[in-house]
Amino acid sequence: MPLYPDQPAPLLDDAITLRQLGSMHIGGRSASLSGLPARDITYSPGGPAVSLDPNGDFEIEQMYVQFAQLLKPRASHPLLMMHGGGMSGVTYETKPCRRPGWQAFFLRAGHDVWLADAVERGRASWARSPEFFRGEAVFRSKQEAWELFRMGPPGSWHAEPSMRQAHDPMRFPVSAFDRFMKQSVPRWTSNDAATQAAYNELARLHGPFVIVAHSQGCHFAFHMALAHPEKVRAIVALEPSGLAQVPDAHLSRLKAIPHLFVWGDHLMGHPLWSQLGPRLQAYRQRLQAQGVQVDEWDLPALGIRGNSHMLMMDDNSDELAAHVHHWLHEQGLCQADDQAPSALSSASL
Amino acid sequence: MPLYPDQPAPLLDDAITLRQLGSMHIGGRSASLSGLPARDITYSPGGPAVSLDPNGDFEIEQMYVQFAQLLKPRASHPLLMMHGGGMSGVTYETKPCRRPGWQAFFLRAGHDVWLADAVERGRASWARSPEFFRGEAVFRSKQEAWELFRMGPPGSWHAEPSMRQAHDPMRFPVSAFDRFMKQSVPRWTSNDAATQAAYNELARLHGPFVIVAHSQGCHFAFHMALAHPEKVRAIVALEPSGLAQVPDAHLSRLKAIPHLFVWGDHLMGHPLWSQLGPRLQAYRQRLQAQGVQVDEWDLPALGIRGNSHMLMMDDNSDELAAHVHHWLHEQGLCQADDQAPSALSSASL
Repeated sequence: MPLYPDQPAPLLDDAITLRQLGSMHIGGRSASLSGLPARDITYSPGGPAVSLDPNGDFEIEQMYVQFAQLLKPRASHPLLMMHGGGMSGVTYETKPCRRPGWQAFFLRAGHDVWLADAVERGRASWARSPEFFRGEAVFRSKQEAWELFRMGPPGSWHAEPSMRQAHDPMRFPVSAFDRFMKQSVPRWTSNDAATQAAYNELARLHGPFVIVAHSQGCHFAFHMALAHPEKVRAIVALEPSGLAQVPDAHLSRLKAIPHLFVWGDHLMGHPLWSQLGPRLQAYRQRLQAQGVQVDEWDLPALGIRGNSHMLMMDDNSDELAAHVHHWLHEQGLCQADDQAPSALSSASL
Repeated sequence: MPLYPDQPAPLLDDAITLRQLGSMHIGGRSASLSGLPARDITYSPGGPAVSLDPNGDFEIEQMYVQFAQLLKPRASHPLLMMHGGGMSGVTYETKPCRRPGWQAFFLRAGHDVWLADAVERGRASWARSPEFFRGEAVFRSKQEAWELFRMGPPGSWHAEPSMRQAHDPMRFPVSAFDRFMKQSVPRWTSNDAATQAAYNELARLHGPFVIVAHSQGCHFAFHMALAHPEKVRAIVALEPSGLAQVPDAHLSRLKAIPHLFVWGDHLMGHPLWSQLGPRLQAYRQRLQAQGVQVDEWDLPALGIRGNSHMLMMDDNSDELAAHVHHWLHEQGLCQADDQAPSALSSASL
């Protein structure tokens, strides 16, 4: 079923005219180490050996944000794109099929786009562990991602790509799954407070934003909105894996912030997602009970089959982006496209 | 002295019109782990505990490259910007003074810009250590960076910013040094071969490039040019800390590739740089003996005092970028600016 029949979407070959392109680090703190032994290292082949003292002063727990600001935006606020667990802003920057990601799509649709790498991920950098980052880094294996991101059912992984049994239907380009996994970054499970603090500082200093969050990122988006409701204009939650742990009454702070939950296919086939689905249903009802507008797109129920957890990389990801763009237009957050309908028109759904 | 008197430079407020904005991961390999014990973790607050098996298949040793391609480039080849040790592509993306970096400058000057995060750095991600990355990660302390990047003389560091004694003159915005250090990323000393392989694959598949490399990145740039001389059109080596370890005769492969070495101030005051300076002088003479064009800008000798190791962030970094742009024009690699002289004109030097 077409969510927005006959709505135009940006053309892939439209130019993107920027006023500014840059980045910043935000949040974090200064911290010190002492008592660790020194050792000799050579920084560059051909360079002399130098004695490295691992002790000293460091900057830790900062976040990285990349911004692309349009000369003539057609949206009232920038989109802040928040990645999920074990990922970075690259989630929205490129697709395994090698086509441009949602960052370029939404720039063409008239939105300034801010891409975050949360604390410990990607260009945000990471700190010595366990001295600063408690516990140990978690590296997601390809087989775990294959199942967790619902490329295929439990037990369907095989090291040899041609032997992997993907879900049917499957819109993720599974032939490029190994290329996708090059985007994967290690994570800790002990940095949520620092990550939340950095996101909240970003909202406070540079908001208001419209949020597009994925998976674990939704947890930080929900809490950012609770901390600074005036700095968040809408939350598009793509397959949220976390929710806000606050009393129901606090959720009324989100009244002015329309939410959109988007779900892919094959959730019930996975042990974790079959638990998370009902959890988020209950959260949606708690939000609605407090007067928060929460729309939900259960894509398979809407007749759109085969989407993975990585909706922004699936073969219909540009159509889904166009639907999100038109939903944001419905919320009064961006102008309608002034372009002719294109190959990416959601009418094709 | 003005290197290029009365040459115009791009205006900071010029729009940047892109044909495409995106990224890719390149290089790397699949690798497996076995025999490590499983443990329970919770990925998102509110989410259920799951058993994490750290064993399995992983993608490791890949590199990340971000590209901004102009609708109408005025250069014959994209600029590939290679960062130095303990840094990422952010080196060229922003400055501690919060002004846009060399990425935006060279886009405005008509160059497509590719920004690399080398293996193990930033969005390239990193692999479990010591199982995959041998040895341990090196975290550069603020005091080490303060001296190594020549912000101040040995012993001039103080945790309290107002107590730090910077070199005089000093063009780096030392009041923002702690903000700058949020860009710092950990490194290993065991990944040079993987890094070189990824850079070489980038050159082979996506070259030819004009290279702007900094510090440790120059080592990889020199070897990339030796591996694929037809894929490198020029090398701008900003404070090279490494050189190519090959017999002199091999250096003749670089005959068609003009080199430019750029040096900041206060090198002799630092124990490492006072060794590296003569090393690179000797390398320059070896290159020239093989018929390679090597120009050198010893900025203090040219009357430009106070530049740090982070030339692309100093208060005259846009003027230096304009000089580099005009040097590339002299090499026939880009058109002259079709813009009026601006506040950034090198004439101001």
